[in-house]
Order: sequence, then C-alpha cells, then structure tokens
Amino acid sequence: MADALRIGIAGLGTVGASLVALLQQRKNELAVTCGRAIEIVAVSARNRNRDRGIDLTGIDWYDSPVEMASRANIDLFVELMGGANGAADESVRAALSRGLHVVTANKALLARCGVELAALAEEKGALLNFEAAVAGGIPVIKALRESLTGNHVSRIYGIMNGTCNYILTRMEKEGLSFADCLKEAQRLGYAEADPAFDIEGNDTAHKLAILTTLAFGSQIAADDIYLEGITNISIEDIRAAADLGYRIKLLGVAQLTDSGIEQRVHPTMVPLDSVIAQVDGVTNAVAIESDILGELLMVGPGAGGNATASAVLGDIADVAKSRPGAQQVPALGRPAAALEPYRRARIQSHEGGYFIRLTVEDRAGVFAGIATHMAANAISLESIVQRPKPRGENGPQTIILVTHATREDSVRGAVEAISADGYLLGAAQVIRIERPKNA
Amino acid sequence: MADALRIGIAGLGTVGASLVALLQQRKNELAVTCGRAIEIVAVSARNRNRDRGIDLTGIDWYDSPVEMASRANIDLFVELMGGANGAADESVRAALSRGLHVVTANKALLARCGVELAALAEEKGALLNFEAAVAGGIPVIKALRESLTGNHVSRIYGIMNGTCNYILTRMEKEGLSFADCLKEAQRLGYAEADPAFDIEGNDTAHKLAILTTLAFGSQIAADDIYLEGITNISIEDIRAAADLGYRIKLLGVAQLTDSGIEQRVHPTMVPLDSVIAQVDGVTNAVAIESDILGELLMVGPGAGGNATASAVLGDIADVAKSRPGAQQVPALGRPAAALEPYRRARIQSHEGGYFIRLTVEDRAGVFAGIATHMAANAISLESIVQRPKPRGENGPQTIILVTHATREDSVRGAVEAISADGYLLGAAQVIRIERPKNA
Repeated sequence: MADALRIGIAGLGTVGASLVALLQQRKNELAVTCGRAIEIVAVSARNRNRDRGIDLTGIDWYDSPVEMASRANIDLFVELMGGANGAADESVRAALSRGLHVVTANKALLARCGVELAALAEEKGALLNFEAAVAGGIPVIKALRESLTGNHVSRIYGIMNGTCNYILTRMEKEGLSFADCLKEAQRLGYAEADPAFDIEGNDTAHKLAILTTLAFGSQIAADDIYLEGITNISIEDIRAAADLGYRIKLLGVAQLTDSGIEQRVHPTMVPLDSVIAQVDGVTNAVAIESDILGELLMVGPGAGGNATASAVLGDIADVAKSRPGAQQVPALGRPAAALEPYRRARIQSHEGGYFIRLTVEDRAGVFAGIATHMAANAISLESIVQRPKPRGENGPQTIILVTHATREDSVRGAVEAISADGYLLGAAQVIRIERPKNA
Repeated sequence: MADALRIGIAGLGTVGASLVALLQQRKNELAVTCGRAIEIVAVSARNRNRDRGIDLTGIDWYDSPVEMASRANIDLFVELMGGANGAADESVRAALSRGLHVVTANKALLARCGVELAALAEEKGALLNFEAAVAGGIPVIKALRESLTGNHVSRIYGIMNGTCNYILTRMEKEGLSFADCLKEAQRLGYAEADPAFDIEGNDTAHKLAILTTLAFGSQIAADDIYLEGITNISIEDIRAAADLGYRIKLLGVAQLTDSGIEQRVHPTMVPLDSVIAQVDGVTNAVAIESDILGELLMVGPGAGGNATASAVLGDIADVAKSRPGAQQVPALGRPAAALEPYRRARIQSHEGGYFIRLTVEDRAGVFAGIATHMAANAISLESIVQRPKPRGENGPQTIILVTHATREDSVRGAVEAISADGYLLGAAQVIRIERPKNA
C-alpha cells in the first residue's frame, strides 16, 4: 500500500468537525477504497479550547491556517474556513505554492479568484477540488468536469440556495407571508440572522458563476450576474402561479445565447409537472442541458455539515486515489489559460415566457389599454386571467398575463407604457418563466 | 502535451457510430480538456461494408474484436458490442490481460463476471470503466464509486428501463392497456420485437446487480434478484394508485436489511408528490440513500446512441486524463478481493407498505372475512376503498387495501387465506410501495 495521504484541515466549524469525525471513524474502510491511509496530521481553527466533540489527540494544532499551509508536513490542505479574502485566500495560495493539493468548500473565494487559483494549481502540479462549494453534497462539479467531457452545454439551471427554497415552499404549503417564513427559517437555523446574502440571491450567484465556467469554458464572472432576490414574492404570486400550472423557485440560470452567456439569478416560474418543481424545502437541484447527453438533473441536500462533509470527503478520496504529484483533471475543466473571456449577454435580450401581475383600477378601458400595449410590443399571450371580485367588493382589480416567448425589453417596454398611461395601482410584478427542455 | 491516447473501438452500432463521430468532430477540444489527443487507431465490427455515416479512413479495420484487443497498437479497448459471453467477454479479457484499459457499456457482461474482470484489471494495473452500462448517460457509477466514498449506502433504487417507464407513463396518460402501449413502444423503437427482457425486468436486474456491488461492497449477484415484470399491471391498478396518491413505476431496489441485502425488481407504487414519480417516458432516475450525504437523486436519459456515447466519452476522458499505467480507482469501488460475499435477504422478509386489489363477489360477509384475515396476519391498513357500483350493475366488486409497513409473508399469508375462503374472483393484485426517505 502507498504511503498515507497526510492532510491538514483549516476550519473546524460544523463541516470541519463532521469531517474529522468521519475520517477517524472510517479510517480503515477509506484506506481500502483509496488504496492508502488518510491521516489527519494538522488542524487549524480560531479557538483551541472550544469543545467540538472530536478527538484531536496527536494532531498538530496551528493557530494560523497560513502557517499550517506553509509549514505543516502535509500533502493536502483542506480549507473549510470560508470567506472570499483573508486567511482562506492566503492559506490556499500558500498551500498551492508549495505544490500541496487543495480541497475547499469556499464558493466565495472561487467566485472571486478561482481562475488564478486554478492556474497556480496547474503550474505546481497540484489538484484543486471543490465539490462542496456548489450545491452541497450534489456531485455537480464532478459531473461537469468529468462526466460531461466532450458535451457542449447549452443551459444550466438550479435551485442552489436551501434558505430561499425553504421559504418559497413554506409560503406555498402554509399560505404564509414571506416575512413569516423567513422568521421560521431563522428559528430553525435555515437562515442567517442577516439573511440578505441568501434571499437577495448573492449566494446563488457565487455558485452559478463557478458552474458557468465549468459548463461553458469561460472565465469566472461572478460580478456580471443579473440578480433579483425573492423578497418581493407574495403569496398572491404563488397562488396565481399554481392556478396557471407553475411553481415559483429561485433559480440560478446560465445559458448560451447568440449574444453571449446569460447569467441570471431570479425568482422563476417552472411548470408544476416538471421534476424540478417538486424539489421542496432545503433540498437543492441542478439541471444541465447538453448536446450529447441531453438533460441531466441532480437533486440532493444542498447544505448541512454532513452533506457538505460528504462532498469534501469525495474530493479528498480523489486526491488519495491519484498518484502523488500527478495532475489529472484541470480544476476548471480545462487548463486555466484555455478559458475564454466571459462574454455577457444583457438581460434585456433575454428571451422567454413571462408572468405579469398587474393591479389596476376596476374601470372600463383599462384592459383594452393593456392589451394594446402588449400588442404594440409584439407580445403574444398564453393566458389572461381576471377573476370576478366577490359581489359588492370595490377596489383594485388584478390582471394576470402569461406571455409566450418574448424579449425582456419588449416586456419592460410594455409594462412601462402601461404604467405611463396611469393604469397601475402599485408596481407591476414580472416573473420569468423557465421551462425544462422536454416540458 | 503527453502522447495521444490510442483507442480501439469494437462494435459500430448506434453507440459506436455516435462515438466515432464525436471523437472526430471534437478532437481539438477533447485534447485541450484531457491534456492529450485521443486517437481512434482501430475499429472492429461485423460488417465492413455497411454505411454508418462515419469516416473510417486511416483507421485499422479488424474483423475480429478479439484479434483487435490482442494485437492492435492501442492503450484503450472500447467494447460496445454487448452480450454476456462470446466476443465481448473474450475481447475484454484479452485487452485487460495485455494491461490495456477497458471502457465498456456492457451490463450483461459485468452482471455475469464483473468481479473477475475487475480483479484482472487490478492485477494488470488497468482501468475498467463502465458508466454507460447503467442508466445510460446518468453518471451514477461515478457518483457511487467516487463522490460517495466513505458513505454507507442504505438503499438504492431507480427507474432503469426506459421501455417499461414509457409504457407505464402512456398507460396512465392515455388510459391505454398494457398491450396497446407495448405495441406503440415497439412502433417507436422504444421496445424490441421481443420485449421480454425489458418488460419482465431482466434488464433492470442486470443494472441493479452492478449498482448493488458499488453501493454495498458485495460481490455481484445478478441471479439472486427477486423479479416481477410489468405485464400484469392493468389500467385499473394505475387508476386506483392515482386515486390513493401513488404512481406505479418499475423500480430496481437494493436495500440493506438485518438479514442481508434485498435486491428486487418489481412494479412499485411511489408517492405522487415524490420527485421520482414525475420521471416520465424513457427517462431514467436513480436515487441513492446514504448516511453522510442523505438522499441523492439523478434523472436523465437512460438510453439512446448519443446519451450512451456521452457516458462512454466521459469514461474515455477519465482514462486519457490518468497517467498511463496508473491504477487510481478500483473498478468496483474497492479492490475485488475486498468485496464481501453477497448475503441475500429473502423477499418474504421484506417490510414495507402494500397495495392489494381484490376482485370479490358482491355479497354480505365478504368484507368482514377479508378484514379478519388481515387482522389475523397483524396487518394494519392505511386505506380501504370500495366504491359503490353504478346503480343496477351486478357482478364483481373491487376492494382496494393499502397497508402500513408490514412483512411480505404476512401479506402473502393473508391473501392466501382470503383466496382459500373462496372470496376471490380472479387473482389478487399485490404491489409493493416504496417511499423516498423524506416522504
């Protein structure tokens, strides 16, 4: 049997502690599967004295992860601290510079400087694995990087934030407001005290940026993503969607178009009878459409200490099974130098179906005015719903329109014109529709 | 750049021809991704003169695949002929014996002698990849073999035969009989002229046997699988299932129990709101439940020249990215010698929910008799449905029972006792219920 793989783990939060426990409990079977032992030689975390429920006897402790990455007698540096900058960044660079393999779960770091890190890994003949950075335990990185080799991806989309999906699922199932579901998610630990990063879509955007690079072979462009969160989704939208045969999900979508790559994160209507519509709660799902394989959908736990640790463990095993020093798989699917510049398609040129909810005065001529502006912008309609109000009720009327495929700027133009005519009471709600290939 | 990977392809049917075309069209990009060129050096097929729409200029032709595997100047032998014995078996052994890497899509061969072939590959330091053998383009082999390293799998189940799923989907959607849907499937090329191998469950069983070994680390036991096909599923069963919140799918299920491993292929009721229930038509799906990751579900095209070629291409790329001669991943997840003997759990000890449809005489006392036998076998019931017959209609009555979790032998005992009492007109229909972990 080959020499043991010596690893150092930086970050002993939920994922790190799970990982240490698993590597210790399953030492023997991992050695059989990997053909060599995996030995935790060093760890680093902020607080040495905290009780994490794990046994660190005989493992070197480093107060500084950078120090550990730079000096510890290890083959593989496992980064589980998080953060786009600072210690995570410095220690990963230090490790790669020494030719150490790196496994990381850090989406923010990769979204910011993944290409640089991949280039450094290549130069030093090191492996850089990051399955846990996107969609937790779902092996989407490996699918894109290895299984789909040779395929031309046309679109990749998914539910990549458990917090948002939990909130949207609860809103629909319990008829609760966004605010109430957010509170519930915070109480259960599914949402942070400051939830903005999740509910505004930034977390999904980081993950999407990484997938886009693997799918299309372009440089990572995390700042070039069209972003809309779920804070404006109302229970009325969810009900109207269901009524028309759709469900609302926060999707990250990357799509190849004639004018470049669309990267967008926004609330999206998906057909009720599609598989992705059934993905509930904190579960994640990623769909990949490519020209040889067709559509591949993967569904699984997107977060949590164990699910994330499982992905990290898979990455560590891949390093253990490789020959020391052998570079097999370029970190981003192709050599960093062969990545193409990112060519952004503007959201204005997006083509697709749209759900439009308008709150209008209940008087003659309003509907005709709306219809005229839709026609003037060459928008054809799949559904038009205006329900009778209960007898004797006054006040605004709700009109819901679902368009056939049309351009974003047409929809915006029509809505602006309708608004300029003074028909609207309150802002128009516009939600993009995304259809699986076969739906 | 490293030397080109020289490959020989045996079998130029739909998959083989797709593969040749793809390797030629995407030569340059594959070389970038894999870090070396992939060169088709030799091919072998039955008929040299058939027009396959591909260009074989400059490629050595072998009439005998065994000859090609034994003598051609190649690094990798790609076996796409199929068949559990004969040329496929001989040529794969010849290739591995020379230390050549092997990629195959041959589930029948692996189900019969996969452990032997894996042992031979290990001994010779060769890679043996077979992603295309199970569930077509879905990367389930890689997920089990690599991504889930360290996980303990408790259950794996899936829709692994597109023909059966197409027939069941059509029966439900169109209200057609099994026989009519089978004819339609044959007309569209989704079913063979002799469909027995698909509809009786044998094809699913071969795939399941391979997954069982990867999931549980036991030797392949394809002959030790409980088998029931879909030929007895009637439109009445499908309607009754829908009425009770279920859909019928042909599943292959492998499950770890106290008394060993259950391997079973049979029509199964899954909850209507589960993700797998939405998997329609020729699409395949595989779910893996494991202790660290939780539940992972993968959905994608299970057959077809291109989808299968995509999986083969991924396997070839893995060989190309590896260092020549380096054994990284044991073919069956762990070294062949470390596989445990297969310990079969008998279907009689299966525990789960059951759907039971009984056709009985419409007279006093029948229902009480049935209820008594259920109680005597300690079976508790989740649902009991007996619909009023249209006014004035005579003839048999249908009673549908759905049980809570109970043992297979209890259900069989109860049904036999009911039958012995002379209550039944025609055979009882018994369908097992399978619930996703989180449902």
